[in-house]
Amino acid sequence: MTRVAVLGAAGYTALEVIKILLRHPDVEIVAVTDLQEGRPHIASIHPSLNGRLDICVEKLSPAEVAARAECVFLCLPHGVSASLIPLLLDGGTRVVDFSADYRLNDPDVFAEWYDQKHVDPDRLGKVPYGLPELFRDQIIDAPLIANPGCFPTSAALALAPLLKAGLVRPKGIIIDSKTGVSGAGRTPRLMTHYPECNEGMTAYNIGRHRHTPEIEQLLSSAAGAPAEVIFSPHLVPMDRGILTTTYSLPTGEPSEEEVLQALRDFYAEEPFVRVVDHLPGTKDVMGTNFCHVTARIVRDRVLTISCIDNLIKGASGAAVQNFNLMFGYPETTAL
Amino acid sequence: MTRVAVLGAAGYTALEVIKILLRHPDVEIVAVTDLQEGRPHIASIHPSLNGRLDICVEKLSPAEVAARAECVFLCLPHGVSASLIPLLLDGGTRVVDFSADYRLNDPDVFAEWYDQKHVDPDRLGKVPYGLPELFRDQIIDAPLIANPGCFPTSAALALAPLLKAGLVRPKGIIIDSKTGVSGAGRTPRLMTHYPECNEGMTAYNIGRHRHTPEIEQLLSSAAGAPAEVIFSPHLVPMDRGILTTTYSLPTGEPSEEEVLQALRDFYAEEPFVRVVDHLPGTKDVMGTNFCHVTARIVRDRVLTISCIDNLIKGASGAAVQNFNLMFGYPETTAL
Amino acid sequence: MTRVAVLGAAGYTALEVIKILLRHPDVEIVAVTDLQEGRPHIASIHPSLNGRLDICVEKLSPAEVAARAECVFLCLPHGVSASLIPLLLDGGTRVVDFSADYRLNDPDVFAEWYDQKHVDPDRLGKVPYGLPELFRDQIIDAPLIANPGCFPTSAALALAPLLKAGLVRPKGIIIDSKTGVSGAGRTPRLMTHYPECNEGMTAYNIGRHRHTPEIEQLLSSAAGAPAEVIFSPHLVPMDRGILTTTYSLPTGEPSEEEVLQALRDFYAEEPFVRVVDHLPGTKDVMGTNFCHVTARIVRDRVLTISCIDNLIKGASGAAVQNFNLMFGYPETTAL
Amino acid sequence: MTRVAVLGAAGYTALEVIKILLRHPDVEIVAVTDLQEGRPHIASIHPSLNGRLDICVEKLSPAEVAARAECVFLCLPHGVSASLIPLLLDGGTRVVDFSADYRLNDPDVFAEWYDQKHVDPDRLGKVPYGLPELFRDQIIDAPLIANPGCFPTSAALALAPLLKAGLVRPKGIIIDSKTGVSGAGRTPRLMTHYPECNEGMTAYNIGRHRHTPEIEQLLSSAAGAPAEVIFSPHLVPMDRGILTTTYSLPTGEPSEEEVLQALRDFYAEEPFVRVVDHLPGTKDVMGTNFCHVTARIVRDRVLTISCIDNLIKGASGAAVQNFNLMFGYPETTAL
Repeated sequence: MTRVAVLGAAGYTALEVIKILLRHPDVEIVAVTDLQEGRPHIASIHPSLNGRLDICVEKLSPAEVAARAECVFLCLPHGVSASLIPLLLDGGTRVVDFSADYRLNDPDVFAEWYDQKHVDPDRLGKVPYGLPELFRDQIIDAPLIANPGCFPTSAALALAPLLKAGLVRPKGIIIDSKTGVSGAGRTPRLMTHYPECNEGMTAYNIGRHRHTPEIEQLLSSAAGAPAEVIFSPHLVPMDRGILTTTYSLPTGEPSEEEVLQALRDFYAEEPFVRVVDHLPGTKDVMGTNFCHVTARIVRDRVLTISCIDNLIKGASGAAVQNFNLMFGYPETTAL
Repeated sequence: MTRVAVLGAAGYTALEVIKILLRHPDVEIVAVTDLQEGRPHIASIHPSLNGRLDICVEKLSPAEVAARAECVFLCLPHGVSASLIPLLLDGGTRVVDFSADYRLNDPDVFAEWYDQKHVDPDRLGKVPYGLPELFRDQIIDAPLIANPGCFPTSAALALAPLLKAGLVRPKGIIIDSKTGVSGAGRTPRLMTHYPECNEGMTAYNIGRHRHTPEIEQLLSSAAGAPAEVIFSPHLVPMDRGILTTTYSLPTGEPSEEEVLQALRDFYAEEPFVRVVDHLPGTKDVMGTNFCHVTARIVRDRVLTISCIDNLIKGASGAAVQNFNLMFGYPETTAL
Repeated sequence: MTRVAVLGAAGYTALEVIKILLRHPDVEIVAVTDLQEGRPHIASIHPSLNGRLDICVEKLSPAEVAARAECVFLCLPHGVSASLIPLLLDGGTRVVDFSADYRLNDPDVFAEWYDQKHVDPDRLGKVPYGLPELFRDQIIDAPLIANPGCFPTSAALALAPLLKAGLVRPKGIIIDSKTGVSGAGRTPRLMTHYPECNEGMTAYNIGRHRHTPEIEQLLSSAAGAPAEVIFSPHLVPMDRGILTTTYSLPTGEPSEEEVLQALRDFYAEEPFVRVVDHLPGTKDVMGTNFCHVTARIVRDRVLTISCIDNLIKGASGAAVQNFNLMFGYPETTAL
Repeated sequence: MTRVAVLGAAGYTALEVIKILLRHPDVEIVAVTDLQEGRPHIASIHPSLNGRLDICVEKLSPAEVAARAECVFLCLPHGVSASLIPLLLDGGTRVVDFSADYRLNDPDVFAEWYDQKHVDPDRLGKVPYGLPELFRDQIIDAPLIANPGCFPTSAALALAPLLKAGLVRPKGIIIDSKTGVSGAGRTPRLMTHYPECNEGMTAYNIGRHRHTPEIEQLLSSAAGAPAEVIFSPHLVPMDRGILTTTYSLPTGEPSEEEVLQALRDFYAEEPFVRVVDHLPGTKDVMGTNFCHVTARIVRDRVLTISCIDNLIKGASGAAVQNFNLMFGYPETTAL
């Protein structure tokens, strides 16, 4: 039995990680924190937890959290995370960080894209990126995991095997992603106000979304050479799901079957990635930790189409997958 | 050609009334106001007006508005409306008020349901309720119209003819209404945040929604006796539309055909109400000023089902219908 | 370990029961059947089962099914179920029947509402209705369970405790239900074609929905006297969820707190029903076997509002709950 | 006053063209045809026309149609259209054809993509493609117009000006389109069954969608050189709207402002295309005949984002725009 805490409990990723952990036979949730006044019951914040988790939200110091929990799921905004994590680690707890604070290896890149100096730059580059399909070995013993971004997960699971196999070039990769609205978080804004985004579709942050350097870092690592991507996220009127379509130039003239086989080979032993022949849809993976991926050759381009649930494989499911690896449970437990 | 102004231009009802007026051959929109800083172009607030209306949003005093416009569409919250209307009327302009400020006849009922004393109580009871199907004669010459609430419109169009015909009793009427999310306005809140209300349905304000006394006033007027209703609004994950199901006790033992015929007789000459035999859906009237209504007898109850677009017949379409009557244009112009 | 089969595997309830059973530690799915040509893999019918269940769909006789499985989840249309069940029971397997074939006690009532003579009338009235909150004792040892209808579940869980407590009258009960589209099944029809039902709401089968006699039978049983209801189902543009609003006449003058307390008392020990003070929404119970219910007094009526996931507590979750009771597993296993 | 007929009246494009024509002051709808049995009222097929168009659906020969109407809006499937059009033209009526039958200039290309020999090959290449922004001069006097496909409209309006200006290369253009479900028509299928496509997103027909050669023909014409595209359509859970994102290689090193200015120059006099600086959304143009388009430079690529309503500018609005040009009405009438 492992004692865990969830920090920043009011958001969607926190809710999802709690729901998954409730199914985990070896986990006890010993603390949930948030900035709410008083000590409201978690079910007053998330009515869907009514009768499923009997705990009140507290305000706790990092030391108090570390004293109580062996693992912390940190569902806080970037910047806030990095200010707490050194204290949590000092207290002896392990941390799965949902923020982007430790995903980028280079403090300058972080500063450029997040408009702030990193407060804990020395740790950058030493924190495993929590995508087990690519970095499983590093995750097992780490005190801190940088839980992946949702778009980078969907893009890297499709492209990394092809880059590793040398089938596609790392430059000029186009990544056209479509995401459900829960990816924008739980804070009401005009863009995510129901009558604004329902029945409509928009592109947003084209060319300047903060997941861009994260994707490039992942793809560069897979290619062993600097990757450059054009990343275009789009907002789709649905709760959950990311569908990512990528377009890249082949190095030679691979057949569709060769590309598909490279994916199948890479994921042969993976529990959560399925290489499919048909064009997958986000609903096929909704509510699950699976990624469905396929590839096509159209004219002279290699296309991939991959689907995940942004809140599960793109966040909370990946976090529990990392937790299972870190604490020696079967990787698929509760997932 | 009539010069009109739209006050409170950032909301959904303002947008809809502008779109309808753009189709009106005899209307010129001479002012739109809002509390925005600067003088932003209306298309920066409502991108769908890009290339359709070339006007900037201003801050104007009631006197300035009245000097410029012959008619004002007042899309402001209750309380604010009543503070401006006397000044607008003094300036010689006519007003269609979208708020609830002048819908109730009794200042005490207003105070009870709106938690404030009315600032212009002497005018209450003298302002026509802008439902032409019930009060057309009063509307034509009025300087000020209380534009109807969306739920009261859907309920009264179904029940008033039956009460007038003495077919159903005015007490014990159950009104179960279902509305799209645009009815909640354009201000982002958690309840209307996309991932909260999408794919889910809730009841809200059961027994204490502010449209309750408005409905009772309308039905009492139709019945010639005090009406009492149990009103239950529900929020449905769709942009627009209200479907209202009512349940009332018959006075005698009318057949379904008799009830339907009473509706058909009442609306024989009406341009915007259609009595249908099938069960209507909100999509049948989406984007239109129509109300579709039918009736059923189930066991010992009379049921009605009526559908409107909450933003058109439930707000902005009704407003233009009233405007047409007030200014002598054919009632259906632009609708 | 219990060997189970799922018959009629192409539908939504079959998919849901499979997903739940995959989480059940003591269940092995040994057969899935459908009328498809060949022996297609279940994942070709339900892509979301890709990599989660490795089995092919077969055509099997009842005897073959009974020889292989200890329990059958029968997801077939009414009429078809009753023709197979005697053969399955003869083969020695136990059955949870998702159809309506054994829910009604009276063959005449069945014939009236289903337009056909019952083929196995002698068994009617002897098959437990699978709502554990009302009939747990009968379920445990039964060879065959009539798994409840979704609307009856939502209505009976709200009203049965109040009728049992004598707080409301069994006549004149109005039941206004709103359901997501998955309740209509997986066969494409115009009514459930996306552009027809998206962004729109309709009533359907008012006064003649086949769940009416089922609801009346349940409420009569609770009241100990004949119940009469007016049942109005509505179709809501969402995948899942039922919200049922009921209106009934109190026997005396109970306070809201007394009515709520009657619900709390009745469900004090129940694992899947939560009596809440706020107005619940369907999203609070989406994907779960929970029912959230509350009550209000408005004027002289008792209102209840209850929410379930129509595919889980309204079908497949209830089925597994029944299965757990029948086979001696903890009632909440996998739920 | 022009007498018009709508053939194939049961579909969504027919409904939309009827709704638009009802607002046209100089049009009389004299016939609507479909294959329904009997002569059902149009409102029994499209309830939203209740009280708005009083006409019955007929089965009429091309000669009968031509005798009655001066212009035919032909909303029939490909193949069927080409079999009727010569007869309609012989009868002396003019035709706006919604099918793809006369959009491609080359009968071999038609045969390759539509799996059938063209029945009227001699007319191919002589029928104007009804995109007034590109081919207005040819439309005015034509007896027959090939009304554009929805995806080609969204792609060509974004790319043609850049190709004409020589700013981007005609090869290697990637077109990633996202469409609402109404584009799939009104025939119920599993793919468009509400619970299948709601809350999910898929790619479909990647690299082999029939709009591919139509797009290439349009872009080749604009470029004055053979264009080659990779076209990826995606299905989005919303009723209407197409958002198309394109990626192309610049010929030189244009700035974002130069690209935007090329669009602004090209559309300076166009009533229905708006070049915007922000990223447009489909909801901005829903229900209108407008196209909103913008451009971005990301790394070494030129991106465009364009939005239309697939049923209006992508079908029925374009048809009326063409009709207005053909019959000498102001181009924006009723639009």
